Amino acid sequence: MNGAQSLVRTLIGCGVDTCFANPGTSEMHFIAALDTIPGIKCVLGLQENVVTGMADGYFRIARKPASTLLHCGPGLSNGLANLHNARRARSGIVNIIGDHATFHSPLDPPLAADTEALARTVSAWLRTCRDASSVGRDAAAAVAESSRIGGGISSLILPSDASWGEGGVIAGPLPVPSAPHVDALSIDTAARVLRSSGSKVLLLLGGDATLEESQRVIWRIAAATGAKVMAEFSCARVARGRGRMQLPRVPYAVPAAIKTLEAFETIVLVNATAPVAFFAYPDQPSRLYRDDAMVHQLSRVDQDPFEALNALAAALNAPSANIPDPGERPAIVRGASTPEGLAHTIAAIMPENAIVSDESLSYGWGLYPFTYAAPPHDWLHLTGGAIGYGLPVATGAAIAAAGNRRVISLQADGSAMYSLQSLWTQARERLPITTVILNNRSYNIPIGEYKSVGATPGRTAMDMLDLSKPAIDWVSLAGSLGVEAARAQTLEQCADLMKHSFVGLEPFLVDLSI
Amino acid sequence: MNGAQSLVRTLIGCGVDTCFANPGTSEMHFIAALDTIPGIKCVLGLQENVVTGMADGYFRIARKPASTLLHCGPGLSNGLANLHNARRARSGIVNIIGDHATFHSPLDPPLAADTEALARTVSAWLRTCRDASSVGRDAAAAVAESSRIGGGISSLILPSDASWGEGGVIAGPLPVPSAPHVDALSIDTAARVLRSSGSKVLLLLGGDATLEESQRVIWRIAAATGAKVMAEFSCARVARGRGRMQLPRVPYAVPAAIKTLEAFETIVLVNATAPVAFFAYPDQPSRLYRDDAMVHQLSRVDQDPFEALNALAAALNAPSANIPDPGERPAIVRGASTPEGLAHTIAAIMPENAIVSDESLSYGWGLYPFTYAAPPHDWLHLTGGAIGYGLPVATGAAIAAAGNRRVISLQADGSAMYSLQSLWTQARERLPITTVILNNRSYNIPIGEYKSVGATPGRTAMDMLDLSKPAIDWVSLAGSLGVEAARAQTLEQCADLMKHSFVGLEPFLVDLSI
Repeated sequence: MNGAQSLVRTLIGCGVDTCFANPGTSEMHFIAALDTIPGIKCVLGLQENVVTGMADGYFRIARKPASTLLHCGPGLSNGLANLHNARRARSGIVNIIGDHATFHSPLDPPLAADTEALARTVSAWLRTCRDASSVGRDAAAAVAESSRIGGGISSLILPSDASWGEGGVIAGPLPVPSAPHVDALSIDTAARVLRSSGSKVLLLLGGDATLEESQRVIWRIAAATGAKVMAEFSCARVARGRGRMQLPRVPYAVPAAIKTLEAFETIVLVNATAPVAFFAYPDQPSRLYRDDAMVHQLSRVDQDPFEALNALAAALNAPSANIPDPGERPAIVRGASTPEGLAHTIAAIMPENAIVSDESLSYGWGLYPFTYAAPPHDWLHLTGGAIGYGLPVATGAAIAAAGNRRVISLQADGSAMYSLQSLWTQARERLPITTVILNNRSYNIPIGEYKSVGATPGRTAMDMLDLSKPAIDWVSLAGSLGVEAARAQTLEQCADLMKHSFVGLEPFLVDLSI
Repeated sequence: MNGAQSLVRTLIGCGVDTCFANPGTSEMHFIAALDTIPGIKCVLGLQENVVTGMADGYFRIARKPASTLLHCGPGLSNGLANLHNARRARSGIVNIIGDHATFHSPLDPPLAADTEALARTVSAWLRTCRDASSVGRDAAAAVAESSRIGGGISSLILPSDASWGEGGVIAGPLPVPSAPHVDALSIDTAARVLRSSGSKVLLLLGGDATLEESQRVIWRIAAATGAKVMAEFSCARVARGRGRMQLPRVPYAVPAAIKTLEAFETIVLVNATAPVAFFAYPDQPSRLYRDDAMVHQLSRVDQDPFEALNALAAALNAPSANIPDPGERPAIVRGASTPEGLAHTIAAIMPENAIVSDESLSYGWGLYPFTYAAPPHDWLHLTGGAIGYGLPVATGAAIAAAGNRRVISLQADGSAMYSLQSLWTQARERLPITTVILNNRSYNIPIGEYKSVGATPGRTAMDMLDLSKPAIDWVSLAGSLGVEAARAQTLEQCADLMKHSFVGLEPFLVDLSI
């Protein structure tokens, strides 16, 4: 058995059944092993940022790591931006990064790069296989590490001679390192402050604390104490819709965030970090909460929020409480798109148990309040701010849902251009994804930022932020990659096209003028 | 004057007049400075690997650095693969990488990354600006370092508070560090071995040794001594066509390269490195030359090859010699495309002084011998093996040539998908680029590699290397990005379309079935 074969068998034995791949020459033996050993579904992406973004989306829905297959340092480089987002989402991913043979690298051939240095910037765990005999146990460790709570990215660099060499040994699954228990003092402190001044307390949720299981407990705590609950601005996945909490996010804009948070004397962090501005600005603070606020970490990102919240609810004797009904489901809005109108329309037509991959950016920051009364769904956010996340994450999420959930991909046009190759994989895998391109023909965030610093964009600036010369024809672009598409000028046209797409099992793209 | 303004004025004063950009929020003050200070042409790319590839192509033709403008660590990450290629091409580039304010980074906001670690993997020079007052002198140093022979990439990380802060100081140009002179002993050794056994000597050219000025001297040396001359497989730019040397490259395939090089007892490296295989293979050597060969470094990559060659020619008393005529210009070939037929056809119709951006990969490895009798032209190669180089480099080369030279972009389909956003910039800037997509609907290199290791690709492997499900419609894809395009089934159709494109000043794409 060669190293590559031991790797494939070890991954399968450890529960990894999906590999997002963009292979090159140094990965040929791994691909050859996949040829003869069944048990891993291979999904091809035509650029590596699609591959890594798919792995992120897959984890967010499947709650277990997939592997990637990347080609040497430059192949990894191409995928780093979405690995950055995955790192911020705390998604588990096992990167398999093929590299030059150990005896070849010192000769510095053209493709040689500092692969370890590149991988280190995004990885929680990193190892370069020494030889074929160590590949199996390295892979088992990589999977275990990426499976822990708040675990993140394992990167296994696989020199081609470790891959083709004989002497491979299959390793069994290793125990997943257990999460450190939440400290009793931390529970007591949170309970005391919630009892004494509940309405001045914010429970700020991050990581798995935004999932349904946690929300049920949080609602009991909130109902018993009068505490407010919010999610971080950059959440990996939020359970939303009927039956889930009406959970606002910390606003993006610094003045709005400061205004929202100034009511709170205490912020209790549940797998969250203390809220800071996305960007710094002259004469604006970086911290978004009151200078005199007490910030209390109930559970860290590497701890189990459900355990922490259950202990807190018990300490508070919080009785069971039903999450309130969000009221009537909105209706489709007619006419030109507005953020609010789009939100109502999506809430009106969204199928049960949908997944929303949200890279709507500036247009979408206000969608939350108008979609509380939609059917239950999961909403995925851009966690690390590296644009080009939406289409690949939608693709990986659809793979994880195995055709059983509709994915709605709300996608700003400028960001879509970073990873548009995703559409080809969506067509190839026949994934039930409805992409809505929010087409304003510009980079609207920097225009807004530009204005917010008090400047009027001049000709050069507007030229750098203008995507209208030439205008991108999203309908023929999608068609060229195998995805059916149509244009919508109004929200009712958008709704009709989306509903049409929900009937089929293929991807569809709506180019919505906003 | 703020830091950004001092940066723009310093760059202009140091001769940088072109900025390839994909700006974000942290670069707004730099963009604002460009708004009010004329002198830098700004070229927008819709993904950062397009931006960095354009800067590489620009340098290869302009022979002076442009700047890039990149957004934080993830924006830099997206551009690293083509920076890897630029590093291997030894292209001078001044990266301006916007980053979080110095006081904001320690709070670890979502977009924070280890920007220095990422930049270090491709940079010959790296600095993070401390504050507004240091930006000017840092920029002047960055330009000087990237302008030296074999210099390469300077990366200047610009925290947003160094950009917006007052106290900027314009710096004048710094002297470019001079190249170390070539050692007299090195010249003597080369002269001695050439005199004693010229026909057993290979002069292997890299870097600027493949340019026209060097070739004239090399030909004198070769004619006087009987030495053979070749170029490295991975050359940044080779002067070719009538009046230039008929200069073969070291073959890509290991057996062919070994066969070619086994004739040589001595290899004299002129700004080249000793030839090694692109990839290692089981049971094949990594070094491509004879074990008993003497490898003599005449001039290093950081030295002036023209100086070295002139000194060598003088030591040899090599008389002047005319580079021989390559014979009759080939005619257009008819019928289905073959590598040889395509080469003949391109040689037949290529305009005077064209630039060929070659990412034809496996299809194009044999194009050289059939294009010697074309008009004078420059041929640009994939230097670092990171695919997705061709379209951006063609774009940057056309910018450098300022509309005065036709660029022919020979582009494999799989690689084109990595940086297809380039087509939009070509349309926006109305660049005279003729792209020929060599469309085989597959990743053909790995298929070849797979077979060369004695394996037959099975179903999973072929699935991972097959781009035909769905087939990509390159004509509508190009059209959606503003580039006129048409399909060619035969070489005469291809020739007609290319000739049609040469008349206009706009980009054009031919989707050639191969």
